[in-house]
Order: sequence, then structure tokens, then C-alpha cells
Amino acid sequence: MHSTPSSTVPDAPLTAAPARPRSRLGAPQVGLLPSGPRDHITDVAGVSLGHCTLDAGPVQTGTTVLLPQPGDLFMHKLPAGVAVINGFGKSAGLMQVQELGTLESPIALTSTFGVGTAFNALVRDAIAQVPQLARSLPTVNPLALECNDGWLNDAQALALQEAHVQHALALARQGGAGLPGLQEGSVGAGRGMSCHGLKGGVGSASRCVRWQGQGYTLGALVLANQGRPGALVVDGRRVVIAPPAGGPATERGSIIILLATDAPLDARQLTRVARRAAAGLARTGSDYGHGSGDIALAFSTALRIPQQPTAPMPAVALLHEAALDLLFQAAAEATEQAILHALFAATPVTGRDGHRRLTLREAAPELFA
Amino acid sequence: MHSTPSSTVPDAPLTAAPARPRSRLGAPQVGLLPSGPRDHITDVAGVSLGHCTLDAGPVQTGTTVLLPQPGDLFMHKLPAGVAVINGFGKSAGLMQVQELGTLESPIALTSTFGVGTAFNALVRDAIAQVPQLARSLPTVNPLALECNDGWLNDAQALALQEAHVQHALALARQGGAGLPGLQEGSVGAGRGMSCHGLKGGVGSASRCVRWQGQGYTLGALVLANQGRPGALVVDGRRVVIAPPAGGPATERGSIIILLATDAPLDARQLTRVARRAAAGLARTGSDYGHGSGDIALAFSTALRIPQQPTAPMPAVALLHEAALDLLFQAAAEATEQAILHALFAATPVTGRDGHRRLTLREAAPELFA
Amino acid sequence: MHSTPSSTVPDAPLTAAPARPRSRLGAPQVGLLPSGPRDHITDVAGVSLGHCTLDAGPVQTGTTVLLPQPGDLFMHKLPAGVAVINGFGKSAGLMQVQELGTLESPIALTSTFGVGTAFNALVRDAIAQVPQLARSLPTVNPLALECNDGWLNDAQALALQEAHVQHALALARQGGAGLPGLQEGSVGAGRGMSCHGLKGGVGSASRCVRWQGQGYTLGALVLANQGRPGALVVDGRRVVIAPPAGGPATERGSIIILLATDAPLDARQLTRVARRAAAGLARTGSDYGHGSGDIALAFSTALRIPQQPTAPMPAVALLHEAALDLLFQAAAEATEQAILHALFAATPVTGRDGHRRLTLREAAPELFA
Amino acid sequence: MHSTPSSTVPDAPLTAAPARPRSRLGAPQVGLLPSGPRDHITDVAGVSLGHCTLDAGPVQTGTTVLLPQPGDLFMHKLPAGVAVINGFGKSAGLMQVQELGTLESPIALTSTFGVGTAFNALVRDAIAQVPQLARSLPTVNPLALECNDGWLNDAQALALQEAHVQHALALARQGGAGLPGLQEGSVGAGRGMSCHGLKGGVGSASRCVRWQGQGYTLGALVLANQGRPGALVVDGRRVVIAPPAGGPATERGSIIILLATDAPLDARQLTRVARRAAAGLARTGSDYGHGSGDIALAFSTALRIPQQPTAPMPAVALLHEAALDLLFQAAAEATEQAILHALFAATPVTGRDGHRRLTLREAAPELFA
Repeated sequence: MHSTPSSTVPDAPLTAAPARPRSRLGAPQVGLLPSGPRDHITDVAGVSLGHCTLDAGPVQTGTTVLLPQPGDLFMHKLPAGVAVINGFGKSAGLMQVQELGTLESPIALTSTFGVGTAFNALVRDAIAQVPQLARSLPTVNPLALECNDGWLNDAQALALQEAHVQHALALARQGGAGLPGLQEGSVGAGRGMSCHGLKGGVGSASRCVRWQGQGYTLGALVLANQGRPGALVVDGRRVVIAPPAGGPATERGSIIILLATDAPLDARQLTRVARRAAAGLARTGSDYGHGSGDIALAFSTALRIPQQPTAPMPAVALLHEAALDLLFQAAAEATEQAILHALFAATPVTGRDGHRRLTLREAAPELFA
Repeated sequence: MHSTPSSTVPDAPLTAAPARPRSRLGAPQVGLLPSGPRDHITDVAGVSLGHCTLDAGPVQTGTTVLLPQPGDLFMHKLPAGVAVINGFGKSAGLMQVQELGTLESPIALTSTFGVGTAFNALVRDAIAQVPQLARSLPTVNPLALECNDGWLNDAQALALQEAHVQHALALARQGGAGLPGLQEGSVGAGRGMSCHGLKGGVGSASRCVRWQGQGYTLGALVLANQGRPGALVVDGRRVVIAPPAGGPATERGSIIILLATDAPLDARQLTRVARRAAAGLARTGSDYGHGSGDIALAFSTALRIPQQPTAPMPAVALLHEAALDLLFQAAAEATEQAILHALFAATPVTGRDGHRRLTLREAAPELFA
Repeated sequence: MHSTPSSTVPDAPLTAAPARPRSRLGAPQVGLLPSGPRDHITDVAGVSLGHCTLDAGPVQTGTTVLLPQPGDLFMHKLPAGVAVINGFGKSAGLMQVQELGTLESPIALTSTFGVGTAFNALVRDAIAQVPQLARSLPTVNPLALECNDGWLNDAQALALQEAHVQHALALARQGGAGLPGLQEGSVGAGRGMSCHGLKGGVGSASRCVRWQGQGYTLGALVLANQGRPGALVVDGRRVVIAPPAGGPATERGSIIILLATDAPLDARQLTRVARRAAAGLARTGSDYGHGSGDIALAFSTALRIPQQPTAPMPAVALLHEAALDLLFQAAAEATEQAILHALFAATPVTGRDGHRRLTLREAAPELFA
Repeated sequence: MHSTPSSTVPDAPLTAAPARPRSRLGAPQVGLLPSGPRDHITDVAGVSLGHCTLDAGPVQTGTTVLLPQPGDLFMHKLPAGVAVINGFGKSAGLMQVQELGTLESPIALTSTFGVGTAFNALVRDAIAQVPQLARSLPTVNPLALECNDGWLNDAQALALQEAHVQHALALARQGGAGLPGLQEGSVGAGRGMSCHGLKGGVGSASRCVRWQGQGYTLGALVLANQGRPGALVVDGRRVVIAPPAGGPATERGSIIILLATDAPLDARQLTRVARRAAAGLARTGSDYGHGSGDIALAFSTALRIPQQPTAPMPAVALLHEAALDLLFQAAAEATEQAILHALFAATPVTGRDGHRRLTLREAAPELFA
């Protein structure tokens, strides 16, 4: 197996060019690296998404499933690494990724109290895909990552059902066309999320780099639910907004950051890449608040690790460690951009007990002028 | 709040006395420290257990719930630390313990594919206990720790129901009397577990130490599902047994090790204590095999950390770091002893596809002579 | 021993007030929290500094010694925590701080190849202070933290001598008056350092917070040697400067960030505080480059841990975890501000082979207008 | 570059064969895997050692230098991983190995207070080997690992000189013949070391495994200075010896464990291998005592990572993760065996203040019968 980087991206200059002033959705284009064609994690070939949104009065929640690659993930795993920026979170599956450096399951994003149900749904799906699971083969490591949407959503209702996860997963499986994946803001797992006291949700972005004549893409998908009211920074400038009426003043949010790249990197390198999500996050005003579970996971689509020891191991030349500087920059920029996209795409949501979050557009219309 | 160590335990001599030749269940008494009255984790005051065992043809599984202390754990948490000896596992809840150093939930042990259901059951229980959860209060961090019982148990059946966890939890809540807690071997979560190719399961032990005139107890509870056939060591001697007919030759097991102590320790110190479980585990013949998720969690019952910042923080004098040597020794010895108890207590189980594990008593009767 | 927070600092508002437009040295005042009286790490009572600068043709290096508190550090240690933001560095002493959570030595900052000599000097000083070291007492853990000043300094000369470290340490011991400590820029360990292709060096800042009616101060000291040319961000705005003539285009720098606070925190909490230095660092344009050893160490002056188990352990009520949000914000802001101070204070240095770094004042005079 | 495993080693059976009853030096042969031809770390091709011993009255110390491979290590690095079993230690250089997963320097073992001098000596040697260091190239990461020999050695004398390290390094460079490397016990860095209250020092061992028809060797070198008096276990049996007259009753020792293998493994896998040294250590009676800095470092000689990004990266098929079980077993067994070799080889040493350690032969002659 060999690396399959995207080959048409332009050079990634390290000095500032006159940047595109605006990204998708009217957001500022941040950083110095060029975006991919869609400025979305699906710019990394083979990555697809599906959402399932629950919008029923006090139930404002959902799930977003990221399918890292088509085909079987358990028998042919992807290298992956994790950065626990702040570990105040209940996500399942990270420990094994940290130990083994492999991703062997689709990734479900959801509400905190949905983790158990998402775990169950991913287990059932894996059994359907690999009938020898927990028989002649080991068990699967489902990745169910979460943020707390309890301000807008009636989390105690435990509304998420396994069928919702299966629905999102099925959409992701159809997602080669990519269209569903471009939904952002208050969709899927993002439905009930808040960000800096505003409406948060799902956002995505991508950046392109060149190394030794070869182009590589790195994409980010965030579930943005972090940040104190009043601390939001957009493109280096603090956004002064009226404090929200109600809701916790301190950070109780969390952010999940998924990074995909077609560059051939191993788990240790991907762990280093994942840590750079923290730089992008900081630039949007976060201090990685005490109550915010801030987690980044990075994976590479350039090689597959066989489950079976009888299968040949890949003999891939990884990128030299010096190339990581470009991918670090891409990770930081794509994360910052994806958070902005989540905020710029968010639509208003009213949830339990009449709770409502203003959108960034409502709170700071001058940013959209 | 202040430390409440047990006050009647004898001195813990550091030089070998003529040891009790036998522990409970006929197992050798390992190590140099004296056991507590029951040689069981419930020697640590306030710790209780409940089991729910599923025994129905190919379904041979269950759950064991450890209640670290009576009363509310969410509003008044316990200090805790985690050691990931080998991270090939799917346990939920460890990341937050590592970050915040607190335990705020009962601990459910179960089969790998039961993690989602145990998570859900613990969430529902927590909501019942603390109605403002995920409303004016944050969410809870349920601890659902697992081993893979797929050799004996039809794991694909996902037989564990939330009611089973609730049942075990209810038993633990009644468990001040402690009688249910002394069940070991093929009960609860231990029902389908294997250990070194033999029947594994639940085991427990305790050790007592003295420091500066004060006695402290440390107890261990293990869910023993680890070890290669042929590698078992009992009290320093390898046990040569016929290889099992079928079953994986390599380690696909895992072990969960819970350590409780009444010594006043903080999370960093408890993390150090938890790591010493690895020493006890090694002495039973384990190399922390690749496929074995080996996890230890240690907590102290000597102080409580309030959830609410308006409540006063405890001003407890922790044990001096030099005292940890005794607790390290206790952790290693109690872990080794608890593994032996799991093996010595195990009763035969026949599960899916006629799979059966010999008990240690069947495989090495000379050890019981 | 009990916490001795500073009691006269003003409230720390969480919403933006019309900020002081300028900090010391003409730098922008970043963030929302107020600075301490000197906007310097010595605002934390008892912290002092000493520099020894070597300025001799191709030898442009030195050492800066931070004395965390007066009096004996080995027999009465301070709680401390470490964050390895990027571990490409050769600093000595961090492992033991990570394990034991205590600081027992002055901290010497210096050039990479000076680590061995600084280690030796700190050992000899500790022996002088504690004659039973490595006899009836254990050995000491000297902290020698480093950045690579090899662009300006002839590092191969190994010019740093133990006497230089002793000189800086002696100055720190006299430093109650604090005057030497306010030197910044191209002094001490900062002499040969570069930052974003400009002249870097030593910088410091502080921030004040209030929690439950009590004021606390957090100070930062940085040895700023990090950053790619062209990536520098000052107060949210990228600084476009001509690329330097020569010198590595990629990050080969490193930054050491020391955080001191008078808030009563334990090692686990201080580790969390130290990690927030990464947020401040990111806001100055760093992606934690591959070749940059980015290390933060935080300590508290509010309690002392006795070396001897016969001494009483402190029974201090720590700050509630919820208070950390304020200290996280302070850590991020003080770090960002300290980096700016290093750049704004830097004076020109010409070193080996005629290498010279422009100062920020030379490269971007408009920032000083 | 491709893997160059040793090809003549026999199969490594997983079931117990009638083992050689005795290893070298009269020690029991522990474990189930066969030893290499010399039962020494130099069974891994290209690994060599040199010792420099200081024996002058109260000065009883020295250094042992391990050269992982001939030729340039900085320009062509080896993959490596670290396990901090207990971080109470002052070793230099581990952080960068943890971050980058590469070894780029010889490894010097020595007394705690010799770390600075060993650091300096390795820096000067690296400059001699690579003249562009800290100029057009980055700095080097010297590995200076230590244990505290202060009971026998007058550590305050700081007797180790750079010339001693250079001498040991020069011997290692000549060591292709391997003869010097077989010295064990009270030589080199082992001169002043104690182990379980007895004379400790340097020990080595090796184990051989087969995977998919190919043989691999793993060797261990220990600097054994750990263990409480009375806790020593030899081949599963506690050794009851009279307590030493004087000397600390608690563990103040430390052990450094170096593991070399010719199996093609990456840094993450080697980190996992290094952690299994803890299993072997536990089986000799250690609980990883509070005051004992217990560190393991594992490296592979099967591939080289170029310093320069212009050089081609190796495209090596690593061993499948399932093969690690064999290497885990080899790591645990070789570590246990190497500790026994250190004890069985030790010769009596009398040091400062008339301090003397009995050898195992003196204390337990029945083990040698």
C-alpha cells in the first residue's frame, strides 16, 4: 500500500500572500496555508460524514458519524493519534487508540449521555461487518466522542437511540458524493451545542501543504461546544457581545476535534499533529477551560494496518519528521477555521425550558457585513 | 473531613515472619504484609459490592458493581488515580479520572460489549440520585470497566441489560453487611472470564500497614481474565498444566484491578499506588500481553472533594510520600493475592459452542492438597 | 504552613474593560485580567531572579536563575507541575517533578549545551546548602532548562562555567529587592536567543485574579527562542517583516515558560495550569514547531512539602477545581504577555560568524509608535 | 535499509522445555525463552559496551557507556521508546526520546551527580563526530542515565570526569570484539551500586524469539541499584538474608534498564516493549519503591532514521503488533535475568566511611551451591 496524497494542490507558501479575505460562510480566512477545494474535511479523499438531527421541543440533540475511509476498518486499520488537551470528558475508545495507534471503527460524535448508546450502535454495526468479532477475532474499539449539550437539550431524556446512530452511519456510507458532509452548524451532534455563549455545533475546514514536490491535505471536523461568553476571538480580534441571559458563565462545554490527512504518518507523528489542534483552539479564545473536555484525534488515510498477522505489514516510507512543521501549521489553521465555520453556520435553536442561544450572526452582525 | 483509617490492624513488619501458610480458599498467602480480617476489599470500611450473574446456555456473563462509599459520590467525590498498564481495552470513564483525580460514580465491571449498557445504567442511576445533573450541574462520569469474556460467553448477544447493572448496584447499596461481597470466582462480571487458559473471574484481597503509629488498609478487587496458558505462576512457582483444548493461545484477556484504601492520599499519590498493581500482576506470570487491557484504578476513602465550589475544601494532611513504600507493597501483594483468589474460587463454566474452562482445582489439584 | 496570597490586588473582571492600551516596554496589554504591580513574575512574593550574561565576540550566551522562594528548597519543597508542550529539548530534572510533584532546587535557564554545567553548579550549591545530601539524605533534583542559542552564540565553545551559574544564583539570593529581576530581553540566558527570526530572550509578566474574596497572583517568566520567521502575531495581528538574512527557516528554537503563583494548588492542579501556557504561546503565532522544545513548569508558593517524614505535612485547603478557570486564563495571558515583553525588551546582538538578529523595534518600528 | 535479524537462533518454544538449570555465573535460568549465545546484550549485533571504574578509597563509582550501533548515530538515528516505571530520578535525555522516538547518542550510565559531566562528555564527543552540530545542524540529545551510589561512593566528591566517560566510550567503540562488554557486577557505573541491601551493579542477559520463521534477539543491560533489604526474590523464591548493618532500610536506589533488539519495531512499539521491563523487575522482588528511579529504554537496530530530510526515509515493514507478545516476554525475562546476573557477578566493595555491601555470594552461599 502506498500514500495517495492529493496531487493538484498548490504550493503552501510560508510567507503571507494576500489572503482570500473570506472563507466559506462569510468567515474570515485564517492563517497562511491555502484551503482545499471544499475547505472541508471531505477534501481528504475517502472521508465521509452523516448526520442525524433530533429536533423535538426540549430534545435538541443528535449524532454525527465520521467514516474515516470506505470499506472495512477493523480488518485494515488506520494509524491514529490522540491529544487530550483537557480530559474533563466522557468519550469512549481513546485509551486503545493511545496504546495501539490505530483506528478501527467509525467515529460517532454525540451528546455526553449518548455515549453508551453510540457505543452499542457501533458494536452492533461492527458485528454486522465482521461476524467473527468477539469469537475468533478480538472485540472492536468503538469511538464515541461527546460534548455536553445539556443547556439546550434535555439530556436527561437520553433521547438518542441506536437507530439514530445507524442512520447517520448509513448516510456516511453513502457519502462518497460528499454532499451531506457539507452540512454544518446546528446539525447532527451539533444540534444542541453552545460555543462561547452562542450557538455552536459542527464545523469543518481543510488546509493544503507541499513537501518535497508532493501535495498533502489535512482536514478538520469540530464539534464546537467550548468557550466562555465574552472570550471569543475571531481572526485575532475579541468579539464583544452582550452576555447571554442565563446559562453557565464558566466553561462547561468541550470540543471534539477530528483531523484527517492523506500524508503518510505513523501514530506517534499523528499524536504530535493532534496536539497542534490546541494552538488553533487557543486562537479562538479558549484557555481549555476546566469544565471543557477538549479532545483531538488525528488519523492518516495513507496506509492500512492489517488486523491479521498473516497479512503483510505495509512498508511505507513515512514523511520525515521535519515535514511535520507544515502539518502542524495545517492542523492549527484548519482547527481554528473549522471552529469559525461552526459559529458562522449555526442557526438558532430553542430547546428545553425555553433556553435559546443567539447565533453569531445575531450577536455580531457586523462580522457578516 | 478527616482520615478514618482502621485502627485495630497489627503492625506490618517489613521482614518475613513465619507467614500464614494459607490464605482464604486454600490459596498460598503471598507477600509479607498481613491481610485484613476478611482479606477482601471490603476490609476498607464503606466499600461494598454487588454481583449480577447471567447463566443461560451460551450467555455466560454478568456485572459486578463496586460502590466505593455509601452516600452521594457526585456531590462529594473521592480522590482517585489510574494506571494504564496496557491500554488494549474499551473501558469508559478513565480519562476524566486521570485529569481531575476524582471518582464520582459507582464502578461497573462487565463484558467488553456491555460497556455501553453499563454506561447508560450508571447515567440513569446518577440522574435519580442527583436530579440537577446535566441541568444546573455538569454531567456525571460513569466508570464502566471491561474484559472480553467472548470465549465462554456469546458476547455478540449483547445480553447485559441495564436492569442487571441496576440489580448489582442495588445489592451493593445494601452491602454494608458485606456478605454478598465475599462471593468470588465465576460470579458477576467474572462469570465468563478466563485466566491463563483456566477459569478466571472475580477475586479480592487486602493488606494492612502501619505508618507513624496509625494503621491503614488497602484492598484489591480484580476481574481476572488475563494470561497465557502455561505462564501462570502461583507463589513464585510456574504451574505446568496441559494446554487447553482450543481457545486463543495468546493473551486476549485483560484484567481490571480496583484498589481501595483508607489512607489519606491525593490523586497523584493514588496514581503511583495504582501503578504498583503491575508488580503483583507480573508475579502471577503476566507480561501485560499485547491483547490484554490491563487497568488499575486506586481510590482513597479518607477524604471527599465537594462538587460545589461553595462547599469547603478538605484541609487534610496527606500521608508523607515516604509512606507510599508501604502502600506500594500492599498494592502489589493485594493484587497478586486477589488474582490467586479469583483462580482458587472459580467454579466450572460451560458456555457458547460447548466451550469450557477447567478450573485451577481441576487442572492442578496438587495445589489444593 | 498556610497560603499567603497577595491581598491587595483588584478584582479580576471576566468581561472586557477598557484595557490599559500599553503594558511595560510599549507592548500591547493583552487579555482581560489586570497585571500585578510590576507585571513581572516577581509580583509573586518571594520569587527572585539573577542573570549572568556572557558577551564576548562569538560567545553570546548566559544563564538566568530563578529562585522560587528564599530559604531551603530541598528540606521544604514547593508543589509543582510540568507540561511538555513539545518535547524536542534537553532540559534536565523534569521527570522527577512529573513523578513527585515537587520543586526542590533553584531553576537555571541556559543554552542547550550548558545543561551539564548548570546541573553541576546546582548540585554543588545544593551540597553547600544541605551537607547530608547523598549521604543520610537522598540526592537533589537540579532543574536545568534550556533553549538552543546556536545561531548567535558559538555553542560549541561550551562557554558557560559553573561560576556563571553560581553568580546568577547569588544575585537571585540577593534579589529580594527585585531590581535585577526586571532586566529582560538580551540578558542572562536570553543573550543568544532568537524568536520568530528576531532577537528573543527573557521576558516576564503577571496577572491577578480574585476567587471567593481572596486575591491571587500568577507570574510568568519565559526564555523566548521559538517561532518561525513571518509567523509572529502581536495582540492578534500578524507582524509582516522581511525574512532574516540567513538562519534556519524552520523552528529550531524552543521556549521555556515558568509560572509562579501564590494560590494554594497541588501538583495535579499545577500541571493543568502549566498546560495553559500553550494557549498563550499559540496566540503569539507558534504552532509548537517540530524542532522547538516547548516546556512549561508551574509552581505554587503557598505551601511547603517537608523532605523529612518526621515533619508534619501541610493541611492546606487547596483551591476548588472550579477556581482553576481563572488561573488558566491568567497562565495563558501572562505567557502571551511575557513573550511580547521579551521581544519588546530585546536589544541587538551580533554573535558568531557575524550573525545578527534584528530586534522587533528595528523590524517593525510601527508597533512602537 | 532493511531489518537484519540474527538468523541462527533457535526456535523460541512457548511451553517449558527442561531448561538449562543454570545461566552464566551460576544464576538460575529464569523464564521460558532461550538465551542468546552469550546471554548478554551484545548478542544483539552491533551493540557494544565500555566501562570506566573509579576505585580509590571513598570514591567507588564509574561509568558504563553503551554504544547502540557502530558509526554515526546522530545522522542516522535508531527508533527508541522509554518507560518511566518510577520517575524519582535525574536522568537526562529521556524527554526527547519520548517525543521523537529516536536515539541519537551513546548512552552513559553513571552516578546521579555524574549526570552533568556525562552530558558534557557526550556533547563534546558528538561535536567531534558531527562538526556542524549547533551550527547548520541542531543540537544533540545526550543520554546520561543514573542511579544513586551514595551509600558506598562519596558522591559529594563529584569524582567523575569527562575523561572517564570518554575512556568508556572509546572502549565501547573498540568493542566489536565484545570481550570488554562481558564484564558485570562491580564495574563501571556499577562500582558503587547496591541492590536489596547487597552489592549490586551492572548485569546483562538476552533472549531469543521466532516469529513467522525469522529469529530475533532482545538483550538487556541493567544498572541494578534497587530493592529493599529482605525483599529480594531469586527465581520465585524470597532470599532471607540478615539485614545489612546500616544503610537505608527503604528503597533509595533506582534501576536503569536498557533493552536492545534487532526486531524491526517503531518507537511506539518499543515503548510498549520497554514497559515490560517492569514485569521482570517485579519478579525480583521490587515494588518500584518510592525512592527508586526505575527507567527502561528500548531501541531497535533494524532501521535507521535519517537526520536530514533530504535522505530517504526507511520503508521497512515493521513486525505486526501480535508479534509483540514474544518480545514482551523476552523483555521481562531478559530484565529479570540481567538483574540476577548483576547480583551473581558482584564482587565486594568497601567505600566511604567504611561502608561495605555483602555480595549475594557472601549473604546466601546456598544459592551458589
